[in-house]
Amino acid sequence: MKVYLGADHNGFEYKNDLAKALRQAGHEVIDEGDEALDPNDDYPQFAGKVASALLAANDPEARGILVCGSGQGMCIAANRFKGIRAALCWNQAEARAARNDDDCNVLCLSSRYTSLDEAGSIMATFLSTPFAAAPRFTRRIEQLDDLSS
Amino acid sequence: MKVYLGADHNGFEYKNDLAKALRQAGHEVIDEGDEALDPNDDYPQFAGKVASALLAANDPEARGILVCGSGQGMCIAANRFKGIRAALCWNQAEARAARNDDDCNVLCLSSRYTSLDEAGSIMATFLSTPFAAAPRFTRRIEQLDDLSS
Repeated sequence: MKVYLGADHNGFEYKNDLAKALRQAGHEVIDEGDEALDPNDDYPQFAGKVASALLAANDPEARGILVCGSGQGMCIAANRFKGIRAALCWNQAEARAARNDDDCNVLCLSSRYTSLDEAGSIMATFLSTPFAAAPRFTRRIEQLDDLSS
Repeated sequence: MKVYLGADHNGFEYKNDLAKALRQAGHEVIDEGDEALDPNDDYPQFAGKVASALLAANDPEARGILVCGSGQGMCIAANRFKGIRAALCWNQAEARAARNDDDCNVLCLSSRYTSLDEAGSIMATFLSTPFAAAPRFTRRIEQLDDLSS
């Protein structure tokens, strides 16, 4: 599975640890930065890079993972993009629901409030759970991209 | 404080309980539905209503609260709107960060994985925490609305 990763300074080391675990599990990791620990970097840049790369890849099996301190900024930023469904998950039940019900293609994580151990199991659940594709789920997902301000 | 509420069938009773607590705390509640328990209703409709009403109100003190089973669908839907910053929060620390760092104006809650007791304290923290308005926070928020697919 292709996994696009992004993080700001608050998620920098965390992202590198996730990348290692993902590669060990046999996934192809594309690291969209940040490339170095820069306290002045801005999370929207990395959310934008991961969202754009994922949309350009046009691969229904590919996923994105975004990390910042609370996970909130990344989740807002990624969900600005039509076609991106980003889920900030703090447990495996949420990761399962995000995939099963909403076909989410981006997982957001909080480096501050979710331990790396928890992140490992949340990530594994997110990457292995298929979308249930029930008509009611598909109908709601289609409505998402009709919304705009 | 004006609080716009919305929920699908999975958050219907939960939303009504939150409305009661908000009114008891002296807030003005605007209930954007669903108006009855309808298992066929779709969360994007209520996210759209709350986001649109909040943007139209143009009141920096007003907030939105959205509930669905996992909270994920509501969070994706609301964040499709520029000017909306929706945060799915599962504890008070996340609610504090969402307000302090990201000036979030919509709180999303999971009726399935967050108890009403927990929701009460998360909501209170979300509604009472001011935005820190540090230049780096403001810069990142401005970048959010420059993003699009």
